[in-house]
Order: sequence, then structure tokens, then C-alpha cells
Amino acid sequence: MVRYGSIEAGGTKFVLAVGDNDLSIIKRVQIPTTYPKETLARCINFFSENMVDALGVGSFGPIDVAEDSDTYGQILATPKPEWQGTNILHELTKALKIPISVTTDVNASAYGEYIVGGGKNVSSLVYFTIGTGIGGGAIQDDQFIGGIGHAEMGHGFVMPRSDDGFSGSCPFHKNHCYEGLASGPTIEGRLGIPGQMVPRTDKVFDLISYYVSQMLFNCYLSLRPQKIILGGSVLSETELPRIQKYFAQFNHDYVVTPPLSDMIVTSKMVDNSSATIGNFALAKKQYSTV
Amino acid sequence: MVRYGSIEAGGTKFVLAVGDNDLSIIKRVQIPTTYPKETLARCINFFSENMVDALGVGSFGPIDVAEDSDTYGQILATPKPEWQGTNILHELTKALKIPISVTTDVNASAYGEYIVGGGKNVSSLVYFTIGTGIGGGAIQDDQFIGGIGHAEMGHGFVMPRSDDGFSGSCPFHKNHCYEGLASGPTIEGRLGIPGQMVPRTDKVFDLISYYVSQMLFNCYLSLRPQKIILGGSVLSETELPRIQKYFAQFNHDYVVTPPLSDMIVTSKMVDNSSATIGNFALAKKQYSTV
Repeated sequence: MVRYGSIEAGGTKFVLAVGDNDLSIIKRVQIPTTYPKETLARCINFFSENMVDALGVGSFGPIDVAEDSDTYGQILATPKPEWQGTNILHELTKALKIPISVTTDVNASAYGEYIVGGGKNVSSLVYFTIGTGIGGGAIQDDQFIGGIGHAEMGHGFVMPRSDDGFSGSCPFHKNHCYEGLASGPTIEGRLGIPGQMVPRTDKVFDLISYYVSQMLFNCYLSLRPQKIILGGSVLSETELPRIQKYFAQFNHDYVVTPPLSDMIVTSKMVDNSSATIGNFALAKKQYSTV
Repeated sequence: MVRYGSIEAGGTKFVLAVGDNDLSIIKRVQIPTTYPKETLARCINFFSENMVDALGVGSFGPIDVAEDSDTYGQILATPKPEWQGTNILHELTKALKIPISVTTDVNASAYGEYIVGGGKNVSSLVYFTIGTGIGGGAIQDDQFIGGIGHAEMGHGFVMPRSDDGFSGSCPFHKNHCYEGLASGPTIEGRLGIPGQMVPRTDKVFDLISYYVSQMLFNCYLSLRPQKIILGGSVLSETELPRIQKYFAQFNHDYVVTPPLSDMIVTSKMVDNSSATIGNFALAKKQYSTV
């Protein structure tokens, strides 16, 4: 039986998994992100003991995801300097000698949603994660959106709402991008207590919903996806009606949309498995084309 | 010899053209946009006298451009109510009995740039028109970006700059979208004199450059195109350095870009022919697939 592997390469942890031909998870472990040599050696070790026929990697970025590029699979300039210049694809291919596909973490999640999640019956979707950072991955007709690089939707220009005095958390854009105003750390930045301890009724969630909705609206106008799926730890079902309400306000009956309660949803995949399943599916796709 | 036709269906005029197999313009005429019956009859008449083998239509919108949709080719809710519900594709196909492709005016322009213009050596680009309205069309690997409908990039949410007291010109979004703050009518709206009479040194062009740059930046983060090509009457070469400067300010060295002077350019196609040539090329593509 053919088996597929998944690596979710995150800034603080790597999640390694093995799946069967139906993309079901057989085994899944987690290792800390340390130095490239050490962490990749543990990945190689894991997949030597748990053999797979192809591997999908969804990585933190920025990373070169252009398959025809000389540096495909290489981590670019990043806040994690020890990883900069590491070519994940080369290192893993050299050791494991199997077909490997590399994309971003959010693209992997988008693909998982597209194959078996909230987007399984549509041909276009965008997946956003709103967590420590904000990122988005978009699919249209089985292809990722992205010309010379992957999307960086969390850093879109936004102006602060006039009742929001927060100076922003983005080291690059301060309070002028979505990540700087709506990511998890902005809650503690505003209130001085960790986001998990803040009740959903606090008005900070209204602000965050407002900014996220703005991001969704601009994204919808550019891509016109059938579904927008929200993941990450910052938002919950509770905020959906607010986000939909602001979206409708921004749109003001201009552009046709599906019912917003159908179009804008949260990820329903169990155990936060969008990226794992997405990686399996991308490995399968890679396997079938070599 | 195979010949291709083009209809640029605009709100005030239709431009009809015939091209040869190399997509060169043989004949080009202009008729006023009146009522659908009358205007389409003149189109049909023109292409009966000037026979072509396939036709590309780039239309004002909103229009259904999804080829698998029951209402493909139909004008949707529009400020021109007499056109609402008109199915351009059906009317023309019934009379002319040739393969016809329908897309938006800006998609047609984007395609023209992609085939023979500023984007002929790239695989991804976005074309923006900044004129009476603002619109964008994006191409990635020979496909238009757009899931359940075409892009509406001119209506993205933007907050006014603090030194800009203008109340905005968009009937839907007032001063909260790019079109409402940066389209041609906003110049007269701010200064009380037509835009053509305002010197390029006026600070209104700085404001417009600022907003357009914001639109380009957000678009770049979502699509990562290799080229962004600007058309329409509002902007000229003069504003390019400003637009590039603001783009760099917004980005703040975050995301990798090609040199901005290469990436953000104005349309160089003579006689404003992007859409005409794009329609020819789309007609040719349609002709070769039937």
C-alpha cells in the first residue's frame, strides 16, 4: 500500500505524520524547531523508520515555492536567521530519495480544506490562519495562487480604526498591516494579558473581527473564492457573525456573494489536521506525476 | 486566412475591430453605447460585413464570465439598468454562429499585455485601469484569476489619508474604496475642475498615487505577479516614481519584489490597443479549442 508523509514545518515545532492511501493519519508526532541540521535530521530519522512513498512539506516562510526555480524549497530571509538559506527540499530529497513537494504552511492547510474539508465541493477557496501571525493560501482550479512567490496576505496595508490606539505588533509594518493589528500577540499588546485569558465578549475581538473582515473583503474582491475558511487560534465561531456583518458593511451590496454564512466559515477539520491532510494530498499528487 | 474579431463593450462606447492571424488590427470602428438591442444589432451588422472566424468580447461589468455557468455572458446588476440581464454571448452567438469568448474589459486588456505587451515575457501579471472607474484583471499561467466571478479590485476597502478631506465618489463605498478616492472623477470632485486641466504637479496626483500604490501593494501580496501594468487616463509616467516610492514605504523591505521600476509600469501599447489585441488572442484561443 502506498503511504504519504507530511511535515508541517513551523517556527516553534515540526509536526511529522504518516498517512495511508486514503489520506487518513496513521501516525503523527511533534518535535521542537531548533537548528536546521538537528531538526531536519530528526525528520529524516522519522521517515527512515516510518517509510513513505512521497512527502508533502508545508513550511513557515518566506520560502521559494516556485517549482521551476533554482532555489525551490529554500527558506528565504526570515526572522529565524539560522534557517535562512536552508533548502528543506534538497536536504530531505538527498536523504530520503522520494518525491517531495514543498509549499507554505497555509497553502498546505488550504489544500487540506480543498480536498476533504470545508472546501471539498468547491473549485476555489482561500484559507487564512489568524494566530501568532496571519497568512493566507488560495486555490483556484487545483492550483495555488502565486506568481513569483507565495501569497503574503497578512501584511496587506490597512489603516487603524479611529477608536484603536494600539501601535501595532508587526516589526515591518507596525499598525499598518493586518498582522500588526489582528494577530494573537496584538491582544496581549493591547490589554497586557494573554489572549487566551480574554473573554470573547471583550471589545478587542470586535476590533480584530473588523480588521480580519477587511482582509477577507479585499481578498474576495481580488480572487472571488467560493469559500473563505478561517483557522488559527485567535478566532472562533463566536466572531463569525461579526466578521460577516462587517464584510456586508464594507461591500454595501456592491459585489455578488454567496450567503456570507456559507462563504465565511471556520475550519472544521478535527485535530487541526488541514495542513497534515493537505500535505498528504500534495505528496499524492507529486507521486502520481513522477 | 483566419480572422479574429474584438468587441470592447464600454459604458459609453463599443469599439469593434477585425484582426488577422497575427493579431494585427485590420479595421477598427467605434459606436455609441445606447440600448442593448440597437448596439448589439450594430455589432452584428459590422461582423456580418466584416466576417471573422471567432470573436472575443471584453465587456463592462459586472458580467458572468464563468464558462460553465448557465448565465455565462450575461450582464448582471449594473448602474446601466437597460443592459441588466442582457446576455451578450447568446445574442451574438445566435446571429453570428461563430465561437465567442466573453470576459471583462480589464481581463481583455490584461490578456493583450500578456500576449504582446509589457507582460509578454512573464507568466503572471495584473493590469489595472485607472479612469472613470478602477478595475483590475489578473493572469497566472494563462488563466484569469477569479473563482465564482471576475475580480473587482477597484472596490477594495481603503481608509482615507488624514490630509484628504474628500467625501469620495463611489456610490457604493463613498471614500472607503480605491475607486471612490483615486478614479478620474475624484479629481474634479476635489478641485472643481476637470482632471485633464489639472497640472501633474498638483498634490491631488500625490494622493491618487498614494491610494493606487496601496491597491497595488495589497494586490501584490495576494497574487505576487511579475508585472503590474497601469492603463487608463488618470495616471501617466510622471506618477510612476511616486507610486513605486509609496509601494516601497508600505512594504518596508518585507516581501521580495523585482526592482519596482521593472515591476510597476504603464501600458505601452499603441492606440490603447491592449483590450483589442487581448480580445483577438482570446478569440484565437477559443477558435483553437472548438
